[in-house]
Order: sequence, then C-alpha cells, then structure tokens
Amino acid sequence: MRPPEYLIDAIKKNNSFLILTHTTPDGDAFGSSIALKFLLEQFNKKAEIYAEYPIPVQYQFLPGSDSIKNIELLKVEDLVFSCNCAKENSLPFDILILVDCNNLSRISYKKEIIEKIKTFSGTKLIIDHHVESNLPDHNSLKWIDPQKAATGIMVFYLIKAFNGEITPQIATNLYTAIIVDTGNFQFENTTKEVLSIASELVSYGAKPSYIYQHSFESWSQNRFRLFIKMLNNIELFPPIAISFISKKDFDETLTQESDTERFVEFLRILKEVNITALFREIQEGFLKVSLRSKGDLDVSKIAEEFGGGGHKNAAGYRISASFEEARNKLIEKMKVYNMLK
Amino acid sequence: MRPPEYLIDAIKKNNSFLILTHTTPDGDAFGSSIALKFLLEQFNKKAEIYAEYPIPVQYQFLPGSDSIKNIELLKVEDLVFSCNCAKENSLPFDILILVDCNNLSRISYKKEIIEKIKTFSGTKLIIDHHVESNLPDHNSLKWIDPQKAATGIMVFYLIKAFNGEITPQIATNLYTAIIVDTGNFQFENTTKEVLSIASELVSYGAKPSYIYQHSFESWSQNRFRLFIKMLNNIELFPPIAISFISKKDFDETLTQESDTERFVEFLRILKEVNITALFREIQEGFLKVSLRSKGDLDVSKIAEEFGGGGHKNAAGYRISASFEEARNKLIEKMKVYNMLK
Repeated sequence: MRPPEYLIDAIKKNNSFLILTHTTPDGDAFGSSIALKFLLEQFNKKAEIYAEYPIPVQYQFLPGSDSIKNIELLKVEDLVFSCNCAKENSLPFDILILVDCNNLSRISYKKEIIEKIKTFSGTKLIIDHHVESNLPDHNSLKWIDPQKAATGIMVFYLIKAFNGEITPQIATNLYTAIIVDTGNFQFENTTKEVLSIASELVSYGAKPSYIYQHSFESWSQNRFRLFIKMLNNIELFPPIAISFISKKDFDETLTQESDTERFVEFLRILKEVNITALFREIQEGFLKVSLRSKGDLDVSKIAEEFGGGGHKNAAGYRISASFEEARNKLIEKMKVYNMLK
Repeated sequence: MRPPEYLIDAIKKNNSFLILTHTTPDGDAFGSSIALKFLLEQFNKKAEIYAEYPIPVQYQFLPGSDSIKNIELLKVEDLVFSCNCAKENSLPFDILILVDCNNLSRISYKKEIIEKIKTFSGTKLIIDHHVESNLPDHNSLKWIDPQKAATGIMVFYLIKAFNGEITPQIATNLYTAIIVDTGNFQFENTTKEVLSIASELVSYGAKPSYIYQHSFESWSQNRFRLFIKMLNNIELFPPIAISFISKKDFDETLTQESDTERFVEFLRILKEVNITALFREIQEGFLKVSLRSKGDLDVSKIAEEFGGGGHKNAAGYRISASFEEARNKLIEKMKVYNMLK
C-alpha cells in the first residue's frame, strides 16, 4: 500500500519536524516515532521527538530512544513556522507530526502543554491507526487507518514510499511497534500482512527474541511480586475474570501503574474467560479500569458508558469510587449489554 | 529448501503409513503428524497416527485430531509389511514414519509398546528437528534438521516438494506446530523463515488469534490454580529462578503433568533471570525437571549430565530424588558450568 500523496508531499516540502505521540507511550508510539525520525534524517531533514518522561525501562533498548526529549521542556517559542526566525541552539519546527495518536488532547496529561501545542502555527500531519476521535483542529493532513495493526506498519509503508533504507535500527523499532500492538502476534489484528512485514524486518536486522525479551521479559522482581498479588486477588466467574490491585499492593511492592502493563491480558489465558477486567487503585477512591475481551465481544461500549474508550477488544476508563462500588457498577453494565446473565 | 530425495522416493513408493510421535505430544508433534497424514491422503495413500491418549484439551481443536488413535491399541499384527497379509478391518502398514521424534524409546512410556514397535518389519522414516540421539535402529531413512524451529516447517517443505495443496486444515496444523515450538514467535529460533512461512500459512487459511487462543489460552481454572501455586513456590536468586510443583500441589488442584506446559517458560519474564528450572514431582521421590535459558547459555549440557537432553535453550531430565536433593545437585552442576557463582 502507498500512503496518501498529500502526506508524502508535505514531508518532502518541509525540513524541520516536531514529532509527538500519545500519553503513556507504548512500543508502537516509541517505535513508530523513532523510525520516522530516522527516515527524515536519511533525507537530511531535522526531527525531534518530545514525549513523556521517563522512558519506561522496557523501551530504553530501542535504538534512538536516547534522543527523545521530555515534552515538559518543549518551548513555546519553538512552536512557530521556521522561515527566518531560527535562533541559535533552538529548533523551530516547520511542521508537527502526531504519530500513533490523532487527538491533541491525548498528547499529555498537562493542560498547559496541550495549550502550548495548540499555538503551533505550521502544518499538522497525523499518522495513526486508532479510530478517529473528535479533533480540536480539523485542518490537519490525516492518514488514519484503523485497519492497520500498528502505526509501525504505516511507517513501514512510508519508508517504502520514500525508498528509504530500512536499517537494523529502524527494523528494530518497527518490529517492536508491531509486537507490542499485536501482543507478539496473538491478538485478532495479527494478519498475513503483519507476519510478512515482521519477516521482512528480520531480514533487515530485527532480532525477534532479543526484542521480545526487552519488550516483554523485562519484569523486575517487584513487578513480579505485584503480579502474584493480582493473581491472588482474582475473582473468577466465567465468562468474566476480575482482579484488583490496591494502593497498598503498589506500596508494598514499590511499584507503580506502569508496572501493570500486560497484567490484564494475562487473564485471557483462562479458557472459559472471555472478558477480563483489572481495577487499579491509583489513589484512594480513584481507580483506573482496563477491560479486555476475546472475539466479537465489544468492551469499548462498556468503557464509553463510564466516559472512557478504546478498541473492541481493549478498552478502559477511570472512576472515582471504591473497588466494591466500581466492580458492582461494571457488573451491572455488563448485564445491560448481555455479556453476563 | 527441498527434503532429501530418498525420503521423497520412500513416500512415493509406499501406500500405507503408520505415523508415530513422541511421548507427551505437543503442538508440533500433533500438528506435523496430522498435516503429514492429510498430505498422504491427498495422494490416495492410507495413513494412521497413533499417539498417547487422551489428546490434551488445547489440541483437540486441531482439524484431524479426532482421527488420532490411542497408541495402546496398536496391534502387533498390524506391524508387518503389508503385501498380501492384509486382513479385513485391520490396517497393516508398509512403512513407519517417526515425526518430531528420532528415537524409538521416546514414543511411549510403556516398554511393551516400544518392544512391539521394534517388531515392525517395514522401512522406517524419520522427520524431526531435534538433535539426533542414539538410535536403536540405524537403518532408518532420516531427515533430521536441528536448524529448523519446528518439525512443522519441515512438513511444510515436504508438502511443497510434493506440490500438495495447503488446505486451511493443513495450514492450521502447521501454524500450531510453529507457534508451539517458537513460544508464539518469542524464542531464539524465531527467524525470517519462520515468520514468512507463518504468513504464508495465514494466506492458506490459518487464523493466528484463533489458533493462539486454543493452543495457549485454554487453561482450566484448576491449571490456573496450579500456576499460582508454582509462583508462590518460586525461589529467585538471579540469574536463576527455580520452582517446584509437588505431588500434593497436583492432587489439590486435580491437575497432572500436562497441565504444566509453558509454566517454566513464564519465569523467563524476569529481566534478571537467564535460567529457569521447574521441578515437578510426578511420583513421590521421582521428579521431572525442565530447564530453560536465554541467549547463549546452553542448558542441554546440564540436562545431559543427568541423563536427559534437549536444545540449547530448552532441555530436561528425570531424576529419582527428593526436591531438595535434586535442587542442590542442579545448583552444583550449574556452578561447574559457570552459570552460577
């Protein structure tokens, strides 16, 4: 497939790129952004990625991840169309590219950063595979394809369209993007195309086992202890499995929210379970809830009922409530949607 | 790649095939055997698979698995060269094919079955990717390639060599063979070739997520409770993680050895852990030990020291000892091999 010509043209015409991605960036966010930066640099363009800090330990192995800058250090004076306004030691940007994200409000949890980004006067491009949300700025040049398993696959096609070189560094970033968003080829989005591109990336130097180990097998002992706590807290009433991690569990294991990545997916391992829910007590009385489902069960509808969102098989929301209250409300909604009797 | 001509010739010349595989058959054993049976049937040959019963629940979805026969029902009078000796309601075999196994002694735990198989008077073929062990019968026609990630990949090439049709049923069996032996594309044996063949199998009708769910996400609640017991029994002293499942653990959760598939692999998830060992008490005082390693660490050497074997990153052995004794002996050997200080 070939990316839209207006996107290719916009990249060709500009020289200095600001790359941003979503909050709590994952392997697709980082891998796609870094691969795009490397592509632009092959054509002697300047590019900078600004993202939330710190970079999670499991993605620090990504070649180029050390060049990512802390989004809190983004200066408003850089957010201008470059022309002749370049200052020394500063990098004004011609163009902003949102990668793996199609909504300005998802770039940061901090309002002042969002407002700062909104002052950007240049063109905005969007490269993303998430379902389109309402954009504050509808003048963006968008390439949004929810049929693609990962934004990394779209960046792969972009590199092909530019006849760019897929270096081992780029291959490693794109392979990571793909395996993180397909659960290492286990989710419904694992297609012939996904496996074929993965194979091609290996021929360009991506090392599957090495990348898998860094992305998925880099648990600390504390995280492992937290996982055991979650398993011990499980409530199993097929087709539902629910678990809960309390603030106390986090404190006792010296862990934080980012340590729970992939916990909820693990509960899918039960044959009779089609829907899994994980409640995490971020602060007392404030919970983050992750929902996962198998097959045609659409948990994004449930998440939307609570003001959240996501995909059919992976969604989430936040709620101010105790675990018991939130759990009971979720069960009620599941009954409304005939997911539970 | 093309299988050896003597193997192709032997298949062409014969009409009635007995397919056998190793004890405690896994997805590669079943998937490769069934795909081979389907290939032979495309050429109007007769083929029967005899294997240990019952077929584990996670492989009962495999198309053709319902035609597998219980190896304990194999009759000695069937183990003759066919010619004119065929009886009604009986199927004498021209030729025996060992699939995913290269040693007659690994076909069954029962000596009388091994002895019965040794009476087979026809030709023996071997298609396998395990390192060759000492064979009681060196007159077999062997195609053994330890460079291949799964025997399923070799059967894939065999089908290509015969210009056979890769039906959705065959694709599903071969895809399962591949993902079970590569840990769904996570182990060191995941190559460009593996991913490329997987992609091709999807184009022939294999459904990755469906197959993954059946093969890997079909745990019973009892198995899940056994897993939690294993995690609670863990001893962590990086780079080693050791766990133990007692006879009592099995009994309390109404589980058996086959329920521990992939348990030892899970412990790889710890960043600081490079070698994992799982001791399973099959009978009081009799243990099965599984070893796994990351990267260049060769645990097959350790397994060989105890009379077992396997691959560099996945090996095992059996030992008559208490857990404490066996554990201490293992640690001693690891020190000898400089895997532990």
